[in-house]
Amino acid sequence: VTEIAGEPAGTGRDYPSPMDLLVGIDEIRSAAAKIAGGAVRTPLLPCLWAPGLWLKPENLQPVGSFKVRGAVNALARLPEPARVAGVITHSSGNHGQALAFAARRFGVPCVVVMPDVAPPVKVDAVRSLGADVVLVSPPEREVRTERIAVERGLAIIPPFDHRDVIAGQGTVGLEVVEDLPDVSGVLVPVGGGGLASGVASAVKALRPEALVVGVEPDLAADAAESLGAGRVVTWPAELTYRTAADGLRTNLSDLTFAHLRERLDGIVTISDAEILSTAGELARSARLVSEPSGAVAPAAWLHRRDELRTRFGLDAGPVVAVVTGGNLDPALLADLVRP
Amino acid sequence: VTEIAGEPAGTGRDYPSPMDLLVGIDEIRSAAAKIAGGAVRTPLLPCLWAPGLWLKPENLQPVGSFKVRGAVNALARLPEPARVAGVITHSSGNHGQALAFAARRFGVPCVVVMPDVAPPVKVDAVRSLGADVVLVSPPEREVRTERIAVERGLAIIPPFDHRDVIAGQGTVGLEVVEDLPDVSGVLVPVGGGGLASGVASAVKALRPEALVVGVEPDLAADAAESLGAGRVVTWPAELTYRTAADGLRTNLSDLTFAHLRERLDGIVTISDAEILSTAGELARSARLVSEPSGAVAPAAWLHRRDELRTRFGLDAGPVVAVVTGGNLDPALLADLVRP
Repeated sequence: VTEIAGEPAGTGRDYPSPMDLLVGIDEIRSAAAKIAGGAVRTPLLPCLWAPGLWLKPENLQPVGSFKVRGAVNALARLPEPARVAGVITHSSGNHGQALAFAARRFGVPCVVVMPDVAPPVKVDAVRSLGADVVLVSPPEREVRTERIAVERGLAIIPPFDHRDVIAGQGTVGLEVVEDLPDVSGVLVPVGGGGLASGVASAVKALRPEALVVGVEPDLAADAAESLGAGRVVTWPAELTYRTAADGLRTNLSDLTFAHLRERLDGIVTISDAEILSTAGELARSARLVSEPSGAVAPAAWLHRRDELRTRFGLDAGPVVAVVTGGNLDPALLADLVRP
Repeated sequence: VTEIAGEPAGTGRDYPSPMDLLVGIDEIRSAAAKIAGGAVRTPLLPCLWAPGLWLKPENLQPVGSFKVRGAVNALARLPEPARVAGVITHSSGNHGQALAFAARRFGVPCVVVMPDVAPPVKVDAVRSLGADVVLVSPPEREVRTERIAVERGLAIIPPFDHRDVIAGQGTVGLEVVEDLPDVSGVLVPVGGGGLASGVASAVKALRPEALVVGVEPDLAADAAESLGAGRVVTWPAELTYRTAADGLRTNLSDLTFAHLRERLDGIVTISDAEILSTAGELARSARLVSEPSGAVAPAAWLHRRDELRTRFGLDAGPVVAVVTGGNLDPALLADLVRP
């Protein structure tokens, strides 16, 4: 794959072609400069309770997830007239909050299209960040988003299928290598694949000998199947909605698949029981509140050591697991932390 | 007060005289260099849910509290022969774990004298860090500590009454001003006063116009009374042990009192109900697991805004509250986070 780092692709295009060149390290470095002051530069936390493991606590970002990185970068990269006109996305999850946060930071309009079945607490969270929420029936989400975008002249910022979003999420990987230059492996959850694409792009550019391994729930293992098949395999919502890791139910796009195929070393899968018990362990031992999706990567270090060693040769640390988010229902949190 | 910054006081002396000079900014800068790699450089976390408030999450340190800063600095500052001989302290709390962690890092012996009534989980935590635990009846703690120190040639590192410990804790304040140069106020819990002494020393040296306000439980308000009386007033354990904030039951020493009298703007007090509800809020909104003592400073911003404004003129942010620790019983955590 040829790579033209620093090429200003993505500017003014909402859905780059999957045949585009992959995101380069210069784009990720540029994103790091653009998100400074918007996103928190999270530390790496060594785990005395799990030797060799370091956590990258993205649950501590302003809106509770790494998504703020991609959203802020995407807005910063929009040409001025497009940014001033405003942005739109459809999301019932962390990307909607992140885009609303980023738009408020830039002082521009933001519309978040949400399913009319979304919990009121999630709708309120987006509204409290100053965004317009448009509630639609779930099948209408994409069509309504595109229609509103045209009517109001808004730029669509999708949650992962966008190279500026991938470059923004890639700053996680950049920071990992900066802070832990001898890192031997990075564990990163895979949902739509934006974070994994960005992190793998950064880490492989800066430290090619480090492994980057994706982690997925057993119950939404579409990305693992896709890498095995050599093409994007989609799983229907009836299957992926079984996992409690609601941030990881999405399928890959052609763009993220292209990144993962080139740059990810592989994917391990984890059961929901392992995910939930790890979320409890993170609260009790790492003092971090994690949503189920956020506990998936550390769960791989705790529960897939044999597979990480035999399949990838990843044995000794330092290994970094990205704790991606911390937005969960307080009642579930109370259940998770119970000893 | 005259101040000789950089004077290598404390070296080889375990209990400096309270009439010594106060800790200077050069000692704190030196401590920052010595603890790098041992303590985590925690970020400042802006709170969308509490505008104006930023959190300094010291609960994310390796042993779950800021105490690691003072312990690592105190060991680093010991003359080589003393350090190699080893260290001792008496503590049933976070300082014991922190000293054990620091000693393991330096590869030197460590003894922690603990009351024989300490919960087994706390004893195990110290032992798992490689320290020798000596269990004694509570009234014997100090005598036994001093006797063992003499017998084994160990340096006593007390939890707060030591200028190297104060300088180490002061790195919290140094980082606050580095990361948020326009900070208008810093809220810091007061137990024995080591953290508050160090933070006030750093902040007042670097940004004299910023306020530094201590926070204490109503039920252990000995430091507030001491500042009012102009001398150290001690409260008996029967009183201070009423608060759930077990890290803040200690009285001041002459050394910490001297720092607070010179450099702290004052102290506000907080009820236990406010402390516990804030710990729940930190888990739900800031994704941080905090012990009760760790929630005291943010509780002041949430519940003492009128007093902070009228007594101190502290109204608009940015205000930083130090979340000092995250070691608590999982059953209490489950209760706290319940919505």
